Formats: sequence, structure tokens, C-alpha cells
Amino acid sequence: MFRPICRLSTNQLSKTARSAAIGIRRLHAPVPFDWKDPLGANNLFTEDELAISETAESYCQERMLPRVLEAYRNEDFDRKIIEEMGELGLLGATIQGYGCAGVSSVASGLITRAVERVDSGYRSGYSVQSALVMGGIEEFGTEEMKEKYLPGMAKGKMLGCFGLTEPNHGSDPGSMETMAKPHPSKKGYYSLSGAKTWITNSPIADLLLVWAKLESTGKIRGFVIERSQCPPGTLETPPIKNKNGLRASITGMIQLDECPVPESNMFPEVEGLRGPFSCLNSARYGIAWGTIGALEDCIDRARTYSLERKQFKGNPIAKYQLVQKKLADATTDAAYGILAATQVGRLKDEGKAASEMISMIKRQNCDRALVNARTLQEVFGGNAVSDEYGIGRHVSNLFVTQTYEGQSDIHSLILGRAITGVQAFC
Amino acid sequence: MFRPICRLSTNQLSKTARSAAIGIRRLHAPVPFDWKDPLGANNLFTEDELAISETAESYCQERMLPRVLEAYRNEDFDRKIIEEMGELGLLGATIQGYGCAGVSSVASGLITRAVERVDSGYRSGYSVQSALVMGGIEEFGTEEMKEKYLPGMAKGKMLGCFGLTEPNHGSDPGSMETMAKPHPSKKGYYSLSGAKTWITNSPIADLLLVWAKLESTGKIRGFVIERSQCPPGTLETPPIKNKNGLRASITGMIQLDECPVPESNMFPEVEGLRGPFSCLNSARYGIAWGTIGALEDCIDRARTYSLERKQFKGNPIAKYQLVQKKLADATTDAAYGILAATQVGRLKDEGKAASEMISMIKRQNCDRALVNARTLQEVFGGNAVSDEYGIGRHVSNLFVTQTYEGQSDIHSLILGRAITGVQAFC
Amino acid sequence: MFRPICRLSTNQLSKTARSAAIGIRRLHAPVPFDWKDPLGANNLFTEDELAISETAESYCQERMLPRVLEAYRNEDFDRKIIEEMGELGLLGATIQGYGCAGVSSVASGLITRAVERVDSGYRSGYSVQSALVMGGIEEFGTEEMKEKYLPGMAKGKMLGCFGLTEPNHGSDPGSMETMAKPHPSKKGYYSLSGAKTWITNSPIADLLLVWAKLESTGKIRGFVIERSQCPPGTLETPPIKNKNGLRASITGMIQLDECPVPESNMFPEVEGLRGPFSCLNSARYGIAWGTIGALEDCIDRARTYSLERKQFKGNPIAKYQLVQKKLADATTDAAYGILAATQVGRLKDEGKAASEMISMIKRQNCDRALVNARTLQEVFGGNAVSDEYGIGRHVSNLFVTQTYEGQSDIHSLILGRAITGVQAFC
Amino acid sequence: MFRPICRLSTNQLSKTARSAAIGIRRLHAPVPFDWKDPLGANNLFTEDELAISETAESYCQERMLPRVLEAYRNEDFDRKIIEEMGELGLLGATIQGYGCAGVSSVASGLITRAVERVDSGYRSGYSVQSALVMGGIEEFGTEEMKEKYLPGMAKGKMLGCFGLTEPNHGSDPGSMETMAKPHPSKKGYYSLSGAKTWITNSPIADLLLVWAKLESTGKIRGFVIERSQCPPGTLETPPIKNKNGLRASITGMIQLDECPVPESNMFPEVEGLRGPFSCLNSARYGIAWGTIGALEDCIDRARTYSLERKQFKGNPIAKYQLVQKKLADATTDAAYGILAATQVGRLKDEGKAASEMISMIKRQNCDRALVNARTLQEVFGGNAVSDEYGIGRHVSNLFVTQTYEGQSDIHSLILGRAITGVQAFC
Repeated sequence: MFRPICRLSTNQLSKTARSAAIGIRRLHAPVPFDWKDPLGANNLFTEDELAISETAESYCQERMLPRVLEAYRNEDFDRKIIEEMGELGLLGATIQGYGCAGVSSVASGLITRAVERVDSGYRSGYSVQSALVMGGIEEFGTEEMKEKYLPGMAKGKMLGCFGLTEPNHGSDPGSMETMAKPHPSKKGYYSLSGAKTWITNSPIADLLLVWAKLESTGKIRGFVIERSQCPPGTLETPPIKNKNGLRASITGMIQLDECPVPESNMFPEVEGLRGPFSCLNSARYGIAWGTIGALEDCIDRARTYSLERKQFKGNPIAKYQLVQKKLADATTDAAYGILAATQVGRLKDEGKAASEMISMIKRQNCDRALVNARTLQEVFGGNAVSDEYGIGRHVSNLFVTQTYEGQSDIHSLILGRAITGVQAFC
Repeated sequence: MFRPICRLSTNQLSKTARSAAIGIRRLHAPVPFDWKDPLGANNLFTEDELAISETAESYCQERMLPRVLEAYRNEDFDRKIIEEMGELGLLGATIQGYGCAGVSSVASGLITRAVERVDSGYRSGYSVQSALVMGGIEEFGTEEMKEKYLPGMAKGKMLGCFGLTEPNHGSDPGSMETMAKPHPSKKGYYSLSGAKTWITNSPIADLLLVWAKLESTGKIRGFVIERSQCPPGTLETPPIKNKNGLRASITGMIQLDECPVPESNMFPEVEGLRGPFSCLNSARYGIAWGTIGALEDCIDRARTYSLERKQFKGNPIAKYQLVQKKLADATTDAAYGILAATQVGRLKDEGKAASEMISMIKRQNCDRALVNARTLQEVFGGNAVSDEYGIGRHVSNLFVTQTYEGQSDIHSLILGRAITGVQAFC
Repeated sequence: MFRPICRLSTNQLSKTARSAAIGIRRLHAPVPFDWKDPLGANNLFTEDELAISETAESYCQERMLPRVLEAYRNEDFDRKIIEEMGELGLLGATIQGYGCAGVSSVASGLITRAVERVDSGYRSGYSVQSALVMGGIEEFGTEEMKEKYLPGMAKGKMLGCFGLTEPNHGSDPGSMETMAKPHPSKKGYYSLSGAKTWITNSPIADLLLVWAKLESTGKIRGFVIERSQCPPGTLETPPIKNKNGLRASITGMIQLDECPVPESNMFPEVEGLRGPFSCLNSARYGIAWGTIGALEDCIDRARTYSLERKQFKGNPIAKYQLVQKKLADATTDAAYGILAATQVGRLKDEGKAASEMISMIKRQNCDRALVNARTLQEVFGGNAVSDEYGIGRHVSNLFVTQTYEGQSDIHSLILGRAITGVQAFC
Repeated sequence: MFRPICRLSTNQLSKTARSAAIGIRRLHAPVPFDWKDPLGANNLFTEDELAISETAESYCQERMLPRVLEAYRNEDFDRKIIEEMGELGLLGATIQGYGCAGVSSVASGLITRAVERVDSGYRSGYSVQSALVMGGIEEFGTEEMKEKYLPGMAKGKMLGCFGLTEPNHGSDPGSMETMAKPHPSKKGYYSLSGAKTWITNSPIADLLLVWAKLESTGKIRGFVIERSQCPPGTLETPPIKNKNGLRASITGMIQLDECPVPESNMFPEVEGLRGPFSCLNSARYGIAWGTIGALEDCIDRARTYSLERKQFKGNPIAKYQLVQKKLADATTDAAYGILAATQVGRLKDEGKAASEMISMIKRQNCDRALVNARTLQEVFGGNAVSDEYGIGRHVSNLFVTQTYEGQSDIHSLILGRAITGVQAFC
């Protein structure tokens, strides 16, 4: 009844599989464990990807890291960072042409991880520029838009922001109130009115990708707004200050009051939530990588602290079982998270990534990064309250990553719907 | 200072990565989500591996599953199962030659998953035969031993068990008390005395791989004991009954009272804990796969139940958010667990798997399978108490998998030591 | 604006409060910690309550405990237990008169704790008799019913069961299908038809309190059925075997096929779900006490095991931080649980207990008992699989207590509704 | 063999218990549930205690609350708060005489809860003044010290701080390095040298209670230092800025460089860690109350937000099961926490509170307050990042309360030791 596998294997096993199996012999020599790459994910990356990762890591550690403490204290985002990233080719890196690097999704994930290892706020600014705005224009824009905006954005000369969320519509953007209608006085222009909030980069953005309902159809459409072209009083982008997290990124509102936007700056085809959701999917994919970067930094910091901090008879606290368990848990989740993000990156490039896969890794990696960062924070005892240890900043940031671009519970229900076929949003 | 990645990518990116990147285009068509393979792990398996998996799944669902309810109720292990698995080539499947299939570690993981999808007890019996005993003989035995024992074991004609744990030495086998010394009367024989406990298969095993301290050196050595050759009274293997879990596998003690074992049946070279630990590593690797199989069965059962069970206005309980969250959590952990096990399988075959990697996936997959199975059990409400829904059996089994072959906390401390370099066993 | 508290205290503080405050002096002598009563709950009980508790504890430990292992293995409930409890006055103990003891709700909680310290199944049998059936008759029955049934039940001569749950209606009993209508042939009788399931005690009960919809009104009413009065074929109570938990209690169905019940055996006034819910509230109150008893037994067993079990250099495993944390967590939850149950007991007797309070302590004490029992089970390592250590039995039982009489999630939503005023059952 | 409880109850039950039992009757009228006092803890407080609580709550809500947002943003502690509390008699409120209110420990717990409902930082400042410094002087000081310092401190005219923790000795104060020896030049004076860190109030304190080792004996002793009496250069108290939490309290170091302290300002009898630990116990007791106050405020804020925030078809998010579960969990833990704190307060006043009881409630209430506050923060979605919702501030604060005055893990091991009799600090 059943086909014995021996025959399968004798006749059919590929040479790779066979030589792999023979490789078992080599197991005898003990293989060292690398706590920085616990499940050997580096074996899954191409040489190019590893080189890109190294470039990004070096830049982030050497140039970004020294700025972050003050930036976070003062809620101050240094715009030059985007330019520097542009010089290195890190912006919109998966895009082919238009001055972009055209790398794989895994390579772009590795860049994201490197950035968020420093700070989730920096990563947010980077994701908005690369995934949400450049990615949106590349996917939905006209060829003209691409040629006009992408090269400048790739260099970091032009900064973008992405306006979807509204004050009363967070998890449910379909109910948005921002409206576009033919401009009453300027021909060939739409007039946009409405308010967006919690918009990363908005106060300093040159280019605003704003989603609004077209009055005539009631359908959501995407508009690219150039700040320099907006008459006074039609566009305001006041910053939101006194944030609990992501303080190294700049956040604000977008207030549109009959703001004129050329018709040619509306995305030509995409209608409804498919447009913004596709952009968000790219950003969420990046968050799944980035938050593990932040967690890895927490592990590194907690490990170092636990080895240096001595309590009770001069033992490093790393010797205590309760501390070791925290490190083991966090390291495991980081290792699993990287494998899952890599897998989805590969499938993405093969056109096989379901959007629910991205919900899954966004949710899980954010959740686990947050939970473990909080637990590792305990290792620092009272010293955790000092911002110089950095871990408190990661904890505050990671909470925000859990809530934005799909709060964790919302992704649970997206997954639940995909698993059961039944809707539970009520 | 930093090397821009654009140049990297322009000049150096491999053709694969480039064509992969181009593949992004294909993303536009929505990709369906498969709750049975949420992160597309099937894309990582070769055709042969998929065929082997299918063979194993069919056999397990069609032949094993119908036996398990009664077996579990009555603590009754049907030895024929091992023979049937032998006929299909599933035993010792990674071994090259000696009548074994010589498949990859991932293929063997897929077999293990198929078996434990039915029952962890069946998987335990299978793991002992394949990983612990056949694997041990293949790795440490003389050529003579291999030729003598492996073909019969591969066919399932000869059943093995693995005697390491002693009544007073569970997590710390280095303190074992079983002793081997030159037999006082039989030349060319050792005499073994001592007791082993919690030994899967022992009451019905033909071949007992027993670890004992050689009196002359104090070093642990491995001995292959043939039951049929033992004089009456020198070997007893009483069963242990009334277990809380793994009731479909048979468990017992091994009591050795000056049991004579030919010198040629001692593993020739391996000394100390390296021997048994190497075998255990193979078994643990299998457990990491198997427990996810059990969890996947729990997901399947809970999902089906939640769709069929109606409460409050005729809604299926699958519609409730609290139910959906349980399913989303479990599905995520199962998907992540398979990716991690696959990765370690690949590294194993390439000789790159650190033993701590196996600790990590054994610990995490057991822990997560158990936690999620327990949560899913809640979906069944009061009906969970009926053994016909199967989920209670998985929950009880998975608790045992968490404690054996390295209790979860022990693996935490193994990982903690590997991460910090500091020992916390006290 | 604000009234300084000095004046309050100088002029108004009661003598008790003042002398209490002076008592602070006595703090200096260190007070010993009792792990069996970590927060000194015994100070809250009257001397009578302590005496009742002691009686119950002695009986349970000396007479019940020796029976439980075999009873659980064989799914065998010894009916004599109810008679013995009757002799001691433990049945329906809060009822005044009718041969009942008339003790406080806290005293009855202490009895329940003592019983469940041995086994949740025994406690289930006890709760059904005392809280559900005797309590129901006392609260809703006619004086005639009380005089007829309560004295025999108090002695344990007559065993009761409580039929509410139906095969398709667990969490939502309002949809029940069991119907009562005037008996077509027997005057002065109702005819009941329908099926109840998961009914503790049903296979051996003499008296069945069954809830059914009165056909004429569509309202739920309560009926007391005497098995001895039912014509053959009108009442069947087949046992449900092969349970995963509560195996020391007997469970079954109730199948009614035009079963004649005298009109005088219908509760005269109570209509709708108020009747069964009031009974359930009493039972749930008892479960909140009982599950902590089970947890306390788990703590005791795990503590003893951890002190006796030596691993690694001869240290008792009690010395390991990961073990101590499990004990500390469980002990804390047990201590908190007793205080909460005591508080609700006191308020119950004062007529101040909201039903949501009972939802709260039922949910929390079941949840915490289960979670901690599972964690403590890990302390036993592989030995946990042997039923002689008892902890596996508690774990299996406690899962059932979490699901019955209001599954934990259902109580979450009851509480959520009470907190927010909004209904989320969908 | 066993004494039936019927006889017990018939003959011996106290009148209270009996009338209590009769009270069951009154249960029939449904009792409303108060989500602000879910288990009716208010029934446990005397009228005076309730009045004191009300005074404190009014003051805190009306006078403290309006200051906290700016204080937290700017790390600015308004010293006047202590004076205002002094005017109301809230400082050192359990002390008899010396201008103090002499209230019960429960009353003082209620004050603490009211303060921390606003902010843990304000509560920290209050606890240091009341429990650590005033409590320390009252317990260990000479009559002369008490008369000199307590009245001014009670009025809030004199602010205290408590110097125990040193930069390298957090959880293990027994290893402190601060030394006291006879002053080389000032007769009748000790000379103190050393450094203390994370000292709440230190930069603005008038009175510093500092623990130091007496060089001659090596024993820890307590010294009361008046800042105004210290020669320039002998006492520095630089603030620690840029904290992650407790930003509304002021924190600093204490640097002593041959600081002269009169011999009469050393506590006369108490030696070793008993002194500071006794003070800490009082403070920890207060933390157990306070953190529940903070949690209650989180519940209140999350509940309000969930009722006002509409998503998906205009439903308030309070209608979603996942939101209701968060509220139910938090409310339960708050209710349990208050009962436990009340119980320990009563036992404290009766001289029956073991120090491990205080470890238990400090640990549990901090842990549960933190866990639930974090979960409730999710209810706010992206808006949680705005400090105006207040919940982020509580989350950051509560993390600190979990680590100070005995980090949670340390209390786990204190409890573990008390439960098992075995030490696990290594």
C-alpha cells in the first residue's frame, strides 16, 4: 500500500541530499556555538547579502549609534542620517533602477536589522522612506513619477512620509475621512482636505504620500504631494512631541486644507485599501527584521552587563540561573525570528509570500522582541533606569513597534481569519 | 569609509539574487495562505524529502492512528508497528548502508513529525530504535556490530532500547552507578550490574544499549546486550505501568545482576558522556520535529472543533476573538518551529550543527508545543475531558517530551552556559 | 480645602486602630514564616471554622487519600465517601436545619479545600451534593421538598446530581432543548424528555435535579426527579468513561424519555436561568476554595520532592534558583487565592457578594492553580510521569475545573461586561 | 475517630458566625458589582481609614495630578508637595506622637495607594520621607533624635533621604564600602567617606540617613546627617538625570568625603543589616499598596479609552473580547493585591507580619501591576505613545518599582529560601 522509502532513496535521492547525508560523519568534531548567530542563519545568506549586511552594520554602529542617546533625550531626528544612508545605497534598496541598489529582500532585511539594532526610531524613518514611500511609488506610480522622485529619494536628498492613519481611524483605515475632489479653482488639480496623525517624518518631509477618498467614487486613492508646491496654509505638518518611545524619529500630523495636488500625482490605477496595504506589507516585513535587531542589541547589552556586574561573593550575575534563563529565552526567540524573516524574504522574491505570512512574522517578532527586551531589562536591576544602558530605550521603542502598522491583536485576528475562514472583528 | 552597496550590487550580485529581486514584481497577485504550512516550509524540502514525508504521513494516519486510542487507554504498545515501519524503510533512515535508507536529516525529521502527529509515544518508540540505538551502533560500534545488528533493526525484526538514566540520576548521568567489570567466571566477558529506569521499549527489547562505568577506569562505556544471550536472572526488564503520559509506548526498568556481556559488544573507542550525549543529540533533534507534529495535530483538531461547535446565536466558536488568538499563537509557533528544525537539519548534514543548537530547538519546540497544546485544549471546553477528542492525550504526552532527554530548564542552563561562558548548575 | 488626617486621628480614631498602631512595636521580634499559610489567613478564621477545617482535613487525609490512586486509575468512585462525609456533617454544611450543620460560608470553603487537597474529583462529587443539589432545594424548593430530601442527603444516604449542560449547549445553557410538558397519561405529572451530559454523579444518583424548558411558557424550570419513581425506560444515566481528568468522580449522561415527574417536584417560583445560575454560583464559590487546596497539595509534594531529590554534587534540587522560583510563584498564588476566597465568603454571608465576584475568584483561582500545578510538575522531571507522585493527577483534574462551571474565557467576558457595561459574547 | 462538625456547630458556633450564615438568605437580591472595588475590600476598612483614604485621594487627584505631566517631562520634583502632604498629616502617618497622625498600617497603605495612583515617583518621594527616614528614626533613633527631627519632617519642612545602595552593591548591601571612623580632628564626631547611588530625594534632602560600616567593628551602623552642618566639600549630592522612569521624583548620589557626623547622630543600638532591612520592609509594604494604586489608574484610563475609542462599524473597542480579557485580568490582580496588602497591614499592626510576607506582597503586587499595566497599554494602540494618556508613564514607573527595594528575582529567592530552608543565592 505504501511506497517504501528505501527504494525512493536508493534510486532517486539527489546527489546533494546524498552527500549531505554522508556529511553526518563530520558531526563528530564538536561545532562551536555562536551566541550571536545561534542557529547559523548566516549560512542562509549569499556573500553579497553578507557584504551588504556588513556595510550597513558598520555604518550604523559607527555613525548612528553615537548620535542616538542625545537624539532620544531631545526628540531630535538628524536628517543627515537619511542622506548618509543614501550615499551608501541603503535607501529603497530592493528597487531595480532609478539609482537604487536592486538587492534581494533578504539583503534589505539585513539592512533593516542593522538600523534597528541601533534604534527603532531610526529604523522607522528609514522604513518610511524606503518601504512605504519609495516602495509605493515604485509599485503604483507612473513611470514619470518614478523618474521624478525615486533618484532623489534614493540619494536621501528628498525625504518622504506616508499619510494613512487618521485621528479617529487607526486599525480601521477604511473609514478614513480625508477627501479629494476636483480643485474648485485650479484646473488639472485635485483639492485634498483632512488630517492624518502619527506620521513618521511628516514635519520635515519633502514628499508626502497621502491616501484620501476620491469624492466622486468614494474609493481610496494615493496622492504624492510635494511640499514645495503647496500654497501657504494648505499644508501643515505640526510635530507631535513628548512621545514615550521612538523619540529619535520625528513624528507629526498632516493637515490638508484644500491642498492642490496635480492630477498626474495621483497613482493611476490602484484603488481601495490594496494600495496602502501593499506598502504596509513591505514595511511590516522590514519591521519583522528590525525588531530582532533591537532584541539582539538587548541581548548583547544584557549579556555584557551580567558578566561585568558582580553581586554576592564576587560572582558575575551571569552565573545565576534566573539570569541565564532570560538570556536563553531571548536568544532563542531572536534566532527563530531571523529564520522566519529570512524564509518570508526568500518567498517574497519568488512571489510566494502570502500577506498573512507577513502578519505572522510582524506580529511574532515584535511580540517576542518586546517580551524578551522587557525581561532582559530586569537583568540591569536599578541601573536599568539610567538611559545610558540603552535597554530602556529599546523597551520603549519596541512597544511602539508592536502597536503600529497593525497592532498585535489585529494581526492575531487577521491570522485567525486566515486559519478559520471566519471573521472576528465583530 | 563605508563601501556603498550600490556598487556591490551592480557589479557583484549573483544572478540568483538579481532574478530573485526581479521576482518582486510577481508579488502583486495575492498569494493564498495555507494554515497547514503557514510560512511555506514545504518550499525548503527536496522532492525526495516531500515524497518520504508523504509516505510516512500516509502510513501514520492510515495505520497508526486507528490503534492509538485503545493503546493509550490500555498502556499497550503494538510491536508490529516497528515492523511495519521497518518494511517502509523508516527505521534508522539516515544511516547509509546496512539496509537503511540513507536519507537526509530533514527527511528523517519529516518522518518523525509524521509519527508524532499521531502520538508522542509512538514517536518515542521510533526514536529509541532509530536515533538512540541504531544511531549509536552506527556511530560508535565496530563494523562487526553494525553488520550483525543494523539490518535486523532496520527491518524492525530486532527492537532496541537505550539504558542511560538511573533511578537517582536523571539530569546528571555522569553520576551513574551501573558498573562493568571483568566477568569473574566467563572469559572474554564483562559483568554488568546496576539499574536503569524510565527506559522506553525495555520490557520488549531484543537489544539493550546500556551505558555503564568500567570499574578499572571509572569511565562510562557503551555495551550492546542481546537479551537472548543473557542467563536467567541476570537481566530483568519490568514494565512501569500507570503512566500519566506516553501510554502508547512501553516503558520499563533494566535490572542487571552480574549480567555477562562479550567484550566485543563494548563500543571500542568512545569513553565518557560523549557517547550517550551524541546519541541523545540525535534523538533530541528528532523530538524537535516530532513535537511540532503533535502540535500541528492539536491545531487541526481545535480548528475543526471550533468550526463545528456552535454557541450563542449559532455562531461557530471559531468566530470568537479569544479562540482565534489561541489558533493564531499555536500556528505561529508551529511554523517557526519547523523552520528552526529544518535549519538545524541542514546544518547537521553539513557538519555545522553545534550541540547547543539542538538544545535550543529541543527546548523551544517542546515548550511551545506544550504551551500551545494546553491553550488549544481550552477550545474544547468540557469536552476536552473526553479522550476521543485526542487533544488531552497530546497534552499529557507533550509534558513528558518536555522533561525527557534534557528537561527544559536543563537545556536553559546549557544555553545559558554557551551564551555567557559561565556555569550555573551550581 | 482638605481635612488634615491628624485631626481625624487625634479625635476620631477608634481604640482598635490605635492599639493596633501601637502594636507596631512588637514587630521587632522576627516573626517566623509558615509556608503552609504564607499570608496568615488562619488569623481570619474563627475558632469554630478552624475546628471544622481540622476535622475535614483529618478525614480527607486519613480516609480519602488512601483510596484515590486506585480510584483514579480505574475511574471508580466509592459511594461510601459521601456517606462518611454525611456522618461528619460535611454535606450541605451551610444549610440551617434539616439535619445540616449551619456553618458559615468560610467554614464550608475550608471543607471544600480539604476535600480537593486530596482530589478534585472527590470535591466535584461533594460540590454537586452540597452546593448544587442540596443548595438548590434549600433555596428554591418547597418546604415539603426540603423536609423530604434534605435530611437524607445530609446523611449521604441519598446522592444527588445536577442536570443542566446539554450535548450541544455548554457555555450557553439558555439554548437548552430538554422539554417538560404535562404528562399525556399521568395526571399531576410533567413529562420530561431530553438529554444532559457531563453530569457528575449521574450514573449512581438517587435524586436528579434537572433543568428543562416548560413547553407552555418556554421558561426554564427546575425538577427534582427520584430515580426510584421512574418507570423503566424513561430515565437512563449511562456513565462516560475514559476521561482525561476527574477520574475519581463518576460522570455520565441523563437521558429522559417522557419521564414522569410529579408537579410538586417542580421548583415553585424560580424561572429562567436565575435558578441554575444561583446554584452554580454556590458551586463556583466552592471551586475557588477547592482548587487552592489542590494547588497547596502540589506545593507540598513538589517541595518535598525537591528537598529529597539530589542532582549535581549531591545538592537537593530545592537549591536551584529555577526550582525556587516555581515554588515562590505557586505559594504566592495560593496565599492570594485563599484571601480572596475568604473575603467573598464573608461578603456572601453578609449578603454583599456580587455574582461577578464569584466569577472572579472561580476564574482566577482555577487559572492560577492550573498554571502553577503545571509548573510544579516540572520539578519532578521524568518522575512526573509516574502517577504515584500525584501531581499529574492534580494537573489533569485542574484543567477540568478550569473548563467546567464556566470556562475561564467565559468568566473573562462576564467580568469584561461588568467592567465596561458592554457585551462581547457576539 | 473524627468529630462530626454538626455538634461543633450546634453547640459552639459563635453568634457572629451563625448570624452570618443566616445572612445567606439575603443573597437573593442581586448585588451590584463595582469595578473600582471588585472584591469589596472597602468592607475591610474602618470608617477612619476610609476617611483618611478619601482625604488622601482628594488631595492627590486635585493637587498632585495636575503637576505630574510637566514634572515627568522635565524631571522636576516640586518640593512643595512634601509640605502640602505634611500639612495634611500624611507624612510618617503611622508614628505615634512627634506631630504624627498615629494611624493604622492599613490607613497608611491607603495613603500610599492614593499617591501612587497619581505617580510612582511621587510615591517614592513620600515613602522615603515617611517609611525609610521617619520610620527609621522612630524605630532606631534616640529620644533626642526623634524630638529633634520628627516634628519638622512630619510637617514636610525637613526632607529626608535614605542612603544604603552603593554603585557596586545593589542587591547585596552587606558588601557596602562606605566607612565611618572616629574623626581625625573633630572630637565627638565620626568621619564618613564613601558613595551612595540611586538615592531618591538626595539632591534636595535636608537630612540624610546614611548606612556605613564602622571601621572599628566592621558592622553596619546608621547615621543621620544634617546637610546644613556639613563643611563644604564633605557632602555632595549630584542629581542623576535622564532616567527612564520615576522622572517625577528626584534621584541622586551621596558622596561623602570625610564628612563629620556627631556621635550622637549614630543610631545607638542597631547593628548590621537588621537596621536598613527593617526600614526597607516598611517601604516595601508601602510599595505593595502603591503599585496597585498605579494599576488601578491604568485600569481606569484603559477602560475609559476603550469606551470612547470606536473602531470597525462604530463599536467601542471595549466590545472586543481581546480588550475585555485585558481589563478582566488587570482588575482581578488589582483586587487580589489590595486584599493581600490589607491582610499584611493588619498582621503588621498585630506584630504578626513575617518579613517574607512583605517580600511576597512587594514582589507580587509590583510584578502584577507591571504586567497588567503593559497589557493595558496595548488597548491604546498607537496613541499609547503620547504621554498625555498617562499609561506609558505608569508602565515606565512600575518597571522601576519592580527592581528597587529588592528586585523581583531577589524576593523570589528570599521566598524560595523561606519555603525550602535552602539558600540559592549561590
